[in-house]
Amino acid sequence: MPNPTAAMLVIGDEILSGRTRDANMHYLAGQLTEQGIDLREVRVVSDDPDAIVAAVKALSGAYDTVFTSGGIGPTHDDITADCIAAAFEVRIDVRADARALLAEHYANTGRELNEARLRMARIPDGATLIENPVSIAPGFTLGNVHVMAGVPSVFKAMVATVLPTLTGGAPLVSRTLRIDRGEGDIAGPLGTLAASYANLSFGSYPFQQDGRYGANVVIRGTDVAEVDTAFAALEAQFPA
Amino acid sequence: MPNPTAAMLVIGDEILSGRTRDANMHYLAGQLTEQGIDLREVRVVSDDPDAIVAAVKALSGAYDTVFTSGGIGPTHDDITADCIAAAFEVRIDVRADARALLAEHYANTGRELNEARLRMARIPDGATLIENPVSIAPGFTLGNVHVMAGVPSVFKAMVATVLPTLTGGAPLVSRTLRIDRGEGDIAGPLGTLAASYANLSFGSYPFQQDGRYGANVVIRGTDVAEVDTAFAALEAQFPA
Repeated sequence: MPNPTAAMLVIGDEILSGRTRDANMHYLAGQLTEQGIDLREVRVVSDDPDAIVAAVKALSGAYDTVFTSGGIGPTHDDITADCIAAAFEVRIDVRADARALLAEHYANTGRELNEARLRMARIPDGATLIENPVSIAPGFTLGNVHVMAGVPSVFKAMVATVLPTLTGGAPLVSRTLRIDRGEGDIAGPLGTLAASYANLSFGSYPFQQDGRYGANVVIRGTDVAEVDTAFAALEAQFPA
Repeated sequence: MPNPTAAMLVIGDEILSGRTRDANMHYLAGQLTEQGIDLREVRVVSDDPDAIVAAVKALSGAYDTVFTSGGIGPTHDDITADCIAAAFEVRIDVRADARALLAEHYANTGRELNEARLRMARIPDGATLIENPVSIAPGFTLGNVHVMAGVPSVFKAMVATVLPTLTGGAPLVSRTLRIDRGEGDIAGPLGTLAASYANLSFGSYPFQQDGRYGANVVIRGTDVAEVDTAFAALEAQFPA
């Protein structure tokens, strides 16, 4: 059975303007690979309702699971929750359980649960809350879409909550051989070898070091024994 | 007149598996912002022909300019050029000018221009070459799509070649105010202020430092005077 598929939607002008370098994509990619879920596509869109709604619809229709990052804070530019509700055509309002989490948190920390902070308790109808042990304001899951914060520490904590609830597949295993020859010299035999292992993927990632060319060849697959066999063949083809 | 729009397509299993952290998106975002070109969307797809062709068609139809990164080397997993040709429904083959560049380079460096390396001279009909001062194998421009290497040093060099050929808009200027208060405390007045400057974007980026909450508020726009006026209003609203 093929592994479940996933997509990620990163929401935020700050990434597209170059102000902030996204860190969540790389983190999620590694976590999903360990869990045997194939991350097939990532999209980054700006804080624009039409763009967010269109991307949510496209990705949630095309993949088993979608993860979003960003836009669920208290400020005017945090519009993700409303866009998710629009994409699924459901109502959204402050919800009692989310409000209670925030009320307790702000009471404990001596801060006011004002109108802006209450925005973080706006949850689309039918959604399940995602716990946020870092700063309390919850994410949520609606349909196959998991809506999470963009702040990396909060994003990580929410991923840790969501991942165990998902059905993973066979974890992808990989083995890497460093070959100190130019990609152009290894490409022919490497392509032939790759073609003979239909269940595995062979990636070649060139590098240059001290003026010399080389490549890291990565063999990936879900069957450890098959990866090991292919790796042995690769080593035999390209002895150190 | 609104600024020209752009999208980026990052191609590569290594990004989606978490093996490699993409660096080109952040670099291109910064360069485009300086040039007054609005990067509106980024997509990351795997080394899958259908996914690449579909993304190229969607992005080249929706935005003024598209930049791709990755998949133009000599190995079997380098399929970007063929996918671009398929997306534009044009023929692709080894082209004399690209072949001549490679032939000279490999002659000079004492390496063989073999069949694998010749793959890097496969250029879709009607494309213009993009110079590669780092490792010679060229990128190319077809229609509104600029096809560039994934290796960051080569990507940067190709961006430097392409950008001066594009019509930019008014560069986006930004000013940032650090406010040492929680986002929830500033969100109300900040939203009111943002609503009164329709031509500017106000972004709020929360942080936590030594257990205290704060936010960097960024005002962006193309009219420097208007950004300065709004920034003064922001400082008056949130004195240090």
